[in-house]
Amino acid sequence: MKTRRETASEATTHRLSLLLRSLRVVENEGIRTISSQELARRFGLNSAQIRKDLALFGEFGVRGVGYRVPDLKARLLTLMGLDRTRPVVIVGAGNLGQAMADSRNFNGDSFRVVALFDVDGRKIGGKTRSGVPILDASQIGIEVPRLGAEIGVVAVPAEAAARTVDALARAGVKAMLSFAPTPIVPPPGVTVKTVDLTLFLESLSFQLG
Amino acid sequence: MKTRRETASEATTHRLSLLLRSLRVVENEGIRTISSQELARRFGLNSAQIRKDLALFGEFGVRGVGYRVPDLKARLLTLMGLDRTRPVVIVGAGNLGQAMADSRNFNGDSFRVVALFDVDGRKIGGKTRSGVPILDASQIGIEVPRLGAEIGVVAVPAEAAARTVDALARAGVKAMLSFAPTPIVPPPGVTVKTVDLTLFLESLSFQLG
Repeated sequence: MKTRRETASEATTHRLSLLLRSLRVVENEGIRTISSQELARRFGLNSAQIRKDLALFGEFGVRGVGYRVPDLKARLLTLMGLDRTRPVVIVGAGNLGQAMADSRNFNGDSFRVVALFDVDGRKIGGKTRSGVPILDASQIGIEVPRLGAEIGVVAVPAEAAARTVDALARAGVKAMLSFAPTPIVPPPGVTVKTVDLTLFLESLSFQLG
Repeated sequence: MKTRRETASEATTHRLSLLLRSLRVVENEGIRTISSQELARRFGLNSAQIRKDLALFGEFGVRGVGYRVPDLKARLLTLMGLDRTRPVVIVGAGNLGQAMADSRNFNGDSFRVVALFDVDGRKIGGKTRSGVPILDASQIGIEVPRLGAEIGVVAVPAEAAARTVDALARAGVKAMLSFAPTPIVPPPGVTVKTVDLTLFLESLSFQLG
């Protein structure tokens, strides 16, 4: 049987992320309760959709009061598995890999980059600006389990992407984000999301005409 | 009146990009004609959807033969505005900006990075590894029109994102890609697509449970 989490669509997940972000903003403003209508108005969301998405996961709102901001935020964090820090490893210590290793996006309450991997002997043994160690990519099978990494980021050239995904999967990583401009067929039980920058550029080009 | 291009949804644009990529693959294999069914089978697309998307823009297929690969590819390139090279500028010469400036994604037949901009005096006047010049961000209003840049990439910290978008818009850039982890309200007539890496990570976390 699939869990609710597994049946939630990609689009639902995306909306829950945006909702969480909106809650962080209003919490920082000291607001304690908010209606779905007010959230919708302020953040360009759809109030009926908010209620529908949250209904998938239980009762969140209080009739006539709206949502209690700290409660809803805490429950969303738990629901999304963001209530603890997941160790992340990045394969490929080029500019892109190092940018992510040192980025606030990848180093907050819910994620922390614990290592970079590369095949370049001049990089191995070094550290990024923020101190993330660069390890030998041939040691992924040993280091990833030791570090307890749960998420792998693939920032290698296209031709190395498939074997990087395989190496991470064999080391037990079940969720990956790939920046390689090539389609990836993930092993069974592994999720790979691809960030395809070319698609973004092509879409902009299309709109420019 | 809106053009067909303006009425094509984001999802359509995305599918046309994927179709174009599939055509490049089969063309490289020397295949001259292909049916929508075969494209669908090989690349995990939907054959009825392919026919429907292409029908928005005119007659492409030949009954009983399928699509002529070079013709369809050429027409898609023209349709998407990818049949010429668009100059791209990147604001923010950190690791991320430099990674993109030197990336194959951003330097092909359809796009070329012509300059980076930064506020850091130690970077201004330098070049990236592949030779892209790093210019003074205060000169965006002069340099962007001179370079004829059509697309701007925003790779600055969140707090500098809004003023970067404004500076690029004032310099005539109508299409931007932002990596800043903050919502952007684009000026009228300007399209800003945001690549929000936190959303990707949160989605992976959600699936891990």
